[in-house]
Amino acid sequence: MASSWATLGVDLHLEPAASGGLRRGLTDALRDAVRTGRLAPGTRLPSSRTLAADLGVARNTVAEVYADLVAEGWLTARQGSGTRVADRVVVPPAGPAGPGRREPGRLAHSLVPGTPDLASFPRAEWLKAARRALATAPFDALGYGDPRGRRELRTALAGYLARVRGVRATPDTVVITSGFSHALRLLGPLLRARGVRAAAVESYGLDYHWRLLRGAGLATPALPYDALGTDPRAPDGAGAVLLTPAHQFPMGTPLHPDRRAAVVDWARRTGGLVLEDDYDGEFRYDRQPVGALQGLDPDRVVYLGTASKSLAPGLRLGWAVLPPSLVDEVVAAKGHVDTCPVLDQLTLAEFLASGAYDRHVRSARLRYRRRRDALAAAVADRAPTVRVTGIAAGLHAVLRLPPGLERPVVQAAGLQGLALHGLAFYRHPEAVAEPLEALVVGYGTPPDSAWAGALEALCRALP
Amino acid sequence: MASSWATLGVDLHLEPAASGGLRRGLTDALRDAVRTGRLAPGTRLPSSRTLAADLGVARNTVAEVYADLVAEGWLTARQGSGTRVADRVVVPPAGPAGPGRREPGRLAHSLVPGTPDLASFPRAEWLKAARRALATAPFDALGYGDPRGRRELRTALAGYLARVRGVRATPDTVVITSGFSHALRLLGPLLRARGVRAAAVESYGLDYHWRLLRGAGLATPALPYDALGTDPRAPDGAGAVLLTPAHQFPMGTPLHPDRRAAVVDWARRTGGLVLEDDYDGEFRYDRQPVGALQGLDPDRVVYLGTASKSLAPGLRLGWAVLPPSLVDEVVAAKGHVDTCPVLDQLTLAEFLASGAYDRHVRSARLRYRRRRDALAAAVADRAPTVRVTGIAAGLHAVLRLPPGLERPVVQAAGLQGLALHGLAFYRHPEAVAEPLEALVVGYGTPPDSAWAGALEALCRALP
Repeated sequence: MASSWATLGVDLHLEPAASGGLRRGLTDALRDAVRTGRLAPGTRLPSSRTLAADLGVARNTVAEVYADLVAEGWLTARQGSGTRVADRVVVPPAGPAGPGRREPGRLAHSLVPGTPDLASFPRAEWLKAARRALATAPFDALGYGDPRGRRELRTALAGYLARVRGVRATPDTVVITSGFSHALRLLGPLLRARGVRAAAVESYGLDYHWRLLRGAGLATPALPYDALGTDPRAPDGAGAVLLTPAHQFPMGTPLHPDRRAAVVDWARRTGGLVLEDDYDGEFRYDRQPVGALQGLDPDRVVYLGTASKSLAPGLRLGWAVLPPSLVDEVVAAKGHVDTCPVLDQLTLAEFLASGAYDRHVRSARLRYRRRRDALAAAVADRAPTVRVTGIAAGLHAVLRLPPGLERPVVQAAGLQGLALHGLAFYRHPEAVAEPLEALVVGYGTPPDSAWAGALEALCRALP
Repeated sequence: MASSWATLGVDLHLEPAASGGLRRGLTDALRDAVRTGRLAPGTRLPSSRTLAADLGVARNTVAEVYADLVAEGWLTARQGSGTRVADRVVVPPAGPAGPGRREPGRLAHSLVPGTPDLASFPRAEWLKAARRALATAPFDALGYGDPRGRRELRTALAGYLARVRGVRATPDTVVITSGFSHALRLLGPLLRARGVRAAAVESYGLDYHWRLLRGAGLATPALPYDALGTDPRAPDGAGAVLLTPAHQFPMGTPLHPDRRAAVVDWARRTGGLVLEDDYDGEFRYDRQPVGALQGLDPDRVVYLGTASKSLAPGLRLGWAVLPPSLVDEVVAAKGHVDTCPVLDQLTLAEFLASGAYDRHVRSARLRYRRRRDALAAAVADRAPTVRVTGIAAGLHAVLRLPPGLERPVVQAAGLQGLALHGLAFYRHPEAVAEPLEALVVGYGTPPDSAWAGALEALCRALP
C-alpha cells in the first residue's frame, strides 16, 4: 500500500516497512516530516478521524501513532486544542549568542544528569499493568494503606532485587517510599534520635541529599576520594555513611572491592549503618552488574532503590530494604497511613511480576548504551583533549577536561542553549580529593528527538 | 435470548434486562447466585473464555462482568488462581458469641467511619481518565515534579472548588498533597516556626490529627461544644483553629452561621489562622451544600480537601488552598521535588475536567442517601429509644443512646462481628462538652454486598 497525505500539503509516502507494518511506517514518515521541518513547529495536525479517513486506515492506528509521537516529544497534544507539532528544540547557530538572545531557564537542550529519557517511558505497557492491577485488586486495597506499602509490591521487589541486585530481602523488610529523598527524610531523624551526630558522605555527590541529612541535625563530613574512588574505611566520628557503591555518583566508578568489605567491617565493629544509594544499579554495560553492598550484611546496610531512573521520577516510587531492627521505626516515621498511592504500587507490582520491568530495563539499557557509544565516539573525534570516564554503567559520563576549562566550557554550553553541569556542582565544600575539572554529562536525559542536537551542542562547546 | 449456565451446576437464566442488556443480566444473575449461596464461598469460576463460549457471548462481556463483581466484593481475582467467589461476609447467628469464636481483628463487618464504599470506586472511569491523561501528557511531565503539584490539577481543582464549594482559589494558591494528614504535617511545623504555640481543636474529632499537631510542638486545647455545635469564638491563647465547618466530625452538624463569621473575625483580629477540614463537603442530602468557610476570608482560612472520601483513600490525593502569604513556606516544607505521583495528578485533573468526578459524586450521593434512609428507618423500627442525628450530610450518622449504653452496645456489636466506634473514641481528653453517649456509624464504609448484613448486625446490637 502506498498512500499520500495531502491534508497538510505534505506528501507522506507510506509504505509498510518490511517489518513493523503500517503503524511503524506512518510513525516514521510523520517523525521524518517533523524532523526535516516539512511540518513546521506549532502546525495543527488533522484529527485522527480525518487523517484515518484520508489514508484509508483504522482510526486507532492513527491515534496510536500520534500518541507515540507525543511520547517521543515530536508532537504535543492538549485537550481541546488537538495535536500539534511540538515547538522543536532547535540547535542554535554556532558561535556565542549575546545575552538576552535566550531567556534564562529556557535552554533548548539539557544534559544535566539525574533524569532518564522520559520520552521512552513505556506508557502503553504501564497502562496495561494498571488495567490488570485494577481488575484484580480487592476493593479494600483502595483504603488507607499499610504504611509499609502494599504487600504485592514488597513481595515483587524482594524477588526482583534478590535476582537482579543480590539484595537479601523479604517482603517484611521492604518499605515503599515516594523515592530516595523520602527515604532519606525518614532515616535522617531516626539516626539522629539514635544518637548519631554525623553521617559521612562522599566527596562528590548531591548537595540536596546532604541538606536533607543536615536538616535532621546531622553533620555531613566528606569521605576521601582518591585514585581508587571513595574511601569509606575510616569515617571518623560518623555513625552512618551514605554511599553510591555500584556506580559512584557522579564519578562513575564502583566502590573498590577491598573498600566494600572494609566499610561493612566498620559498620559491624562500631554499630554504624551504611546507607546504600543504588540509583541506577540496573544500567551496567560492560560486564556483570556490581551486586548490592547490602548482600554483604543486611543487618548493617540499608538498601535504597528507586523507579526514578529505571522508569520515571514522576512515578514517585522508591523502596528501602531495611535491617529488621529498623523496620518498625521507619514505618512509624512514615506515619499512620501510607503516603504512596495504592494503584501505583499495585501497577508496579504487576509490571515487575509480568516481566514488563525486565523488558523495559533491557531495552532502555540498549538505547542508553548506543548513546554512550555515540558520545564517546563524538568526543574522541571532535575533542581529543577530553577524556570520557565513568561510562561502564549508568546514564551519565564524566568528561575530564584540561585544567582551567570547566567553567568556560559550561558557560559556552549555555550559550549554545545547552544546560550542563560541571563537576564543581557536585563537589562537597570540604571534599577530600584532588581538584579535578570535568563535565558530568547526563546522556540519558534528552528524548530521542533531541539527543543528536544535544550532542552536537556539547561538541561545539568542548575545547 | 435465554442461556443457562450449567458449567458450575448452577442454572443462571439470563434474560437481557429491559434496560441494561446482556452484561447487566449476567451481572445480576451471578451476583444473585453468590448472594443466595448457590455459589459457595471459594468456588472457582470458569475462565471468562470458557464461560463466554458456554453462553455464546463475547469474552469481553464476561470479563467485564467478572471485573464489576470483583469491584463490588462478590468475587475475588488473583493472577494465577483465577476468579473465585469471595469468602462471604456472613452475618453470624444472633446472640452473643463466646470469646475465641472469632479471631480479633477479623470482624465480618465494619461501620467504622472514615472510609467510603471502596467497592464503588469507579475503576473503569478512572482507567479511562488515566489513559487519556497518559496519551496527552508531554513527556517532561514524567520528571521530578513541581512541589506545588501539576498545574493541570491545580487549575481543575481551583475551578471545581469555586463552583461546588465556594472556595476562592487560583491555580497558584492550590498545593497538592498526599491527603489531609500530609497537609497537617506540613502546616504544623510551619505554624510552630511562626511562633504559634497552640492550635485549638474541636471537643470531638480525630485523635490522629491532634497528635500530628502535637508532634509539631503545638498544644491542642479543646474548643467548647454546646447545643449549637462547636464554639470557636474565643480560642484563648491559640494561634490557629482546626475545624470541620461544613459537617462537624463526627457530630454531623454544620458550624452555626454566627460562629462562622465570628471565627473569621477572630482570625482577622488576632492574625490567627483557621484550618478548614472539608473532608466530605460534597455529600449533603437535605439542602444546598454548606459553602466553605474559606470563601469568607481566603487570607485567614486554609482550605483542606481530599479525594479520600469522594473517591478512595488509596489514591493518596488531597489539596490545600492557601493564603497567598503561606504558599512559599508550604511548598518549601513539601520539599524540593513533588511527593505526589504525576500520573495520578494528571488522571484526577482529567477526571475533574471531563465531568467524571461530578458524575461519580452524584451517583455516590444517591447511593449513600439510600443507605442513610435505610439506617434511619431500621433504627426507628427496631430501636425506638435510639435517636439518629447528624444525617443531613456525609457518610456517617450519630446514634444517640440512653445513658450507660455506649460501651455495652459497642461490645455487643463486636460479638456480632461488627466493628463499631462509640463517641468516646472521638472525644477530646479535655472536651468542653456535656457528656453524651452515642455511636458513630459509618454507613458509607461497607461494600454494597455487605451493607445489609452490617445493618442487621448493628440492629441486633442496639438496645
